[in-house]
Amino acid sequence: MHQDNKLNGAATIILLATSGLIMAAAAIAAPAQPVDHAIVPAEVESAAILLRERALLDNLSVDIVESLTTEVGPRRIGTDGDKRVIAWAQAKFRELGFDRVWIEDVDLDRGWIRGEAKAEILSPYPHNIVLTALGYSVGTGGDLIGEIVEFKTLEDLEAVPEGDSLKGKIAFVSYSMRDYVPQPGEAEMSGYGIGTRARGRGHVVAAKRGAAAIIIRSVGTDTNRYAHTGSGYGYVDDVAKIPAAAISPPDAMLIQNMLKRGKPVMLKINMTSEITGPAKSANIIGEITGREGGDDYLVLGAHIDSWDEGTGAIDDGAGVGSMMAAAALIGQMEQRPRRSIRVLLFAGEEIGFYGVRSYYERHQNDMHEHILGAEVDGGGGRIHTLTSGVGEKSLAIVHEMYKLIAPLGIVWSNANDARGASDMSVLSKAGMPALNFSQNSNDYFDYHHTPNDTFDKIVPEDMRYLTAAYATLFYVAAELDVDFRQ
Amino acid sequence: MHQDNKLNGAATIILLATSGLIMAAAAIAAPAQPVDHAIVPAEVESAAILLRERALLDNLSVDIVESLTTEVGPRRIGTDGDKRVIAWAQAKFRELGFDRVWIEDVDLDRGWIRGEAKAEILSPYPHNIVLTALGYSVGTGGDLIGEIVEFKTLEDLEAVPEGDSLKGKIAFVSYSMRDYVPQPGEAEMSGYGIGTRARGRGHVVAAKRGAAAIIIRSVGTDTNRYAHTGSGYGYVDDVAKIPAAAISPPDAMLIQNMLKRGKPVMLKINMTSEITGPAKSANIIGEITGREGGDDYLVLGAHIDSWDEGTGAIDDGAGVGSMMAAAALIGQMEQRPRRSIRVLLFAGEEIGFYGVRSYYERHQNDMHEHILGAEVDGGGGRIHTLTSGVGEKSLAIVHEMYKLIAPLGIVWSNANDARGASDMSVLSKAGMPALNFSQNSNDYFDYHHTPNDTFDKIVPEDMRYLTAAYATLFYVAAELDVDFRQ
Repeated sequence: MHQDNKLNGAATIILLATSGLIMAAAAIAAPAQPVDHAIVPAEVESAAILLRERALLDNLSVDIVESLTTEVGPRRIGTDGDKRVIAWAQAKFRELGFDRVWIEDVDLDRGWIRGEAKAEILSPYPHNIVLTALGYSVGTGGDLIGEIVEFKTLEDLEAVPEGDSLKGKIAFVSYSMRDYVPQPGEAEMSGYGIGTRARGRGHVVAAKRGAAAIIIRSVGTDTNRYAHTGSGYGYVDDVAKIPAAAISPPDAMLIQNMLKRGKPVMLKINMTSEITGPAKSANIIGEITGREGGDDYLVLGAHIDSWDEGTGAIDDGAGVGSMMAAAALIGQMEQRPRRSIRVLLFAGEEIGFYGVRSYYERHQNDMHEHILGAEVDGGGGRIHTLTSGVGEKSLAIVHEMYKLIAPLGIVWSNANDARGASDMSVLSKAGMPALNFSQNSNDYFDYHHTPNDTFDKIVPEDMRYLTAAYATLFYVAAELDVDFRQ
Repeated sequence: MHQDNKLNGAATIILLATSGLIMAAAAIAAPAQPVDHAIVPAEVESAAILLRERALLDNLSVDIVESLTTEVGPRRIGTDGDKRVIAWAQAKFRELGFDRVWIEDVDLDRGWIRGEAKAEILSPYPHNIVLTALGYSVGTGGDLIGEIVEFKTLEDLEAVPEGDSLKGKIAFVSYSMRDYVPQPGEAEMSGYGIGTRARGRGHVVAAKRGAAAIIIRSVGTDTNRYAHTGSGYGYVDDVAKIPAAAISPPDAMLIQNMLKRGKPVMLKINMTSEITGPAKSANIIGEITGREGGDDYLVLGAHIDSWDEGTGAIDDGAGVGSMMAAAALIGQMEQRPRRSIRVLLFAGEEIGFYGVRSYYERHQNDMHEHILGAEVDGGGGRIHTLTSGVGEKSLAIVHEMYKLIAPLGIVWSNANDARGASDMSVLSKAGMPALNFSQNSNDYFDYHHTPNDTFDKIVPEDMRYLTAAYATLFYVAAELDVDFRQ
């Protein structure tokens, strides 16, 4: 009987998704705490549960990522892929039934050509090395040969006197994100932030000490033979512009094993990357227009650009797919929600929030219209924790809303200190209330910024859970007449 | 108490490894079945247990792989790496205290230059494709452009009429080893053999049908963005020599997703690989000479060559490390075993057993001197099953020997149908008794023949178990006066 009940339960989910048996859906969602119908009306609750269960069975978010990674692929800002994705995203919004679709120009002050990157250890033991130019690095102008000098961290490199103490050498920062142990109270991925410090400004620190180039161990959690690219913070006036590259973790370990033997390790690098002139890009926006009109709206964000060696499936195809699908599923309900929902696909996140900064400049006088925002930029994994960043009065309301996604295995944080993730952090700094849905990102930094960020890394079941959580919560938020700033 | 006992047990292991408390070692090996001392004398049993426990604590096998992959790295036959490894192996044997070290020339009738391999999909959606030339493929002689035609298997390709039915096309065999489900009774890795059929002669089958080139989905179990190289069976007279390459699994899936959309998929390939003239290589042999002299010996094998994009850690650095270390640990015992043990490091396994064939030609009249043989060529994983391939009378003796390695978590197969693994299969076909130690190879075909076959993929604890099993069993076999042919 127990087994039969289970089977009937599963059958019921499928039936209700196609027939709309709302009460059956409510029944299987037990044992959630009852929702306070003074806050979330019973009909909103019922519709939200139906939406949630439909979203769990709907592969739309995955299909969008498949379309994006197949039909566009790499789409670094300023490249041909970027142009293609701007067309793709507008067409996809329209195909999905969004009521309004438009783009907003983003000016790019400098472009970059990746070119080719090769390296080999010349002595003591010849080896090819897998490396990749860091974003906006200059090239080497032919073969660059130097002795490798290892520093465990950027701070160790900074401890060397400025001047010519590294003259002609290749500085190597061997910090391993994989081996970083977060301190008590630190976030789980805090090792990433430490790694990005050397990635961001290591080339300036090394150049001030006379180094001819800098290589860093890739900032990632894997030990695959890929180099993880990423963006530097740019060159500085009056400091030599030296090439900067990341090497794969196995090659970093290989070099360390050579250095342990006490012999000079000579590296040859050849990179043809090049900084170019200004270019144009765009943020792409799709709207499910609320039935009551009005100027205010909720915003779901993701970044449309990707790095250029993979097809950008987890970074940030997963965000694009889940956010487009969440809003589209809301748009497929019997009626439009009370308020509008906009999906904001930002340009140029990878090189420093270019798109959202441009968006903010254009919309700084409209920030009061942004009722609530959230962004997915951590892959396609399931949500484990919901943290709000709303006014004090709203906290109890968000907790009632949360009850509708608790059955997805999501826990509640009472901290109420959330900022929007990634691009959305710029808008929440400007006062926009935000929700932060912390994801399972255990393998995210295995693939991140590598050629291996491809569609097969998306786990469809997890993407459906992710999408269901956002769709449900944002649908309810769009129905309620709440000022989340309060 | 129970917990304390466990702790004491662990402490005992460490103590005995340095102090030689043989009886303590025997005590912790319980609950093995008692060994029949009429077959394995008590003093041999005790020494074997001490050897086993020492080997479990000794990192020598891992250190050898580190040395090989760091100081030599890629070592495809006929390359500079091959020359370096011949010197490295002789020096390493001597450093490890082998009594005799020598090389035996191997003639290579044809060399091969890998060159560079690039590919991109031109339409309907531009994408770079990760591919690698299959061993001994010709190059493309500039850009080769053709429409992709997919075949699920080599048999599907064979079903197309010969002549010009694929004129100017690029044949694509999309068989996935990862998705292969072994039939009842098939070995766990049987999906590999199927994949190697298209890898081996797909270029001939495709050329007979007019194809301009062939690409296959890499033969591997991963979905990383590496192409797995491997050897073709060579070109055939009177059939056009067309280029053959493997593409990465994610790129294979990408192309399949494009083909599903019903539009022609145009691929551009540029490979500069080239077949060259004859070259010289060598098998390298190290011997721990038995204390009773005599002309017969036991042989432990591995192949010294590797593919050229990784550093050959699992294929077959793990074999080289475990076999060298097993014999070296036997050589470190208080006295030499009764009979000699030779470690045979074979050249050119990857391109078709070149080294062992040369060895057999030279030694075909000495095959009676080869008492027992085994080879590691499946990575550094632990042994799960021991299968013998010996005379009927010997089976009971091998079972007594087996009891000494049962505590390593190894089960016994009574099939007695083993041939030596890899190269050693050539010698066991010629009548040499063999043991087959089946390994845990679950991730072996994730890394196999890719740039990702690097030292970090070696699990030290597993390598120590692997080495302990071979050292223990071959020590006992070298002590006993048994004709394993009987």
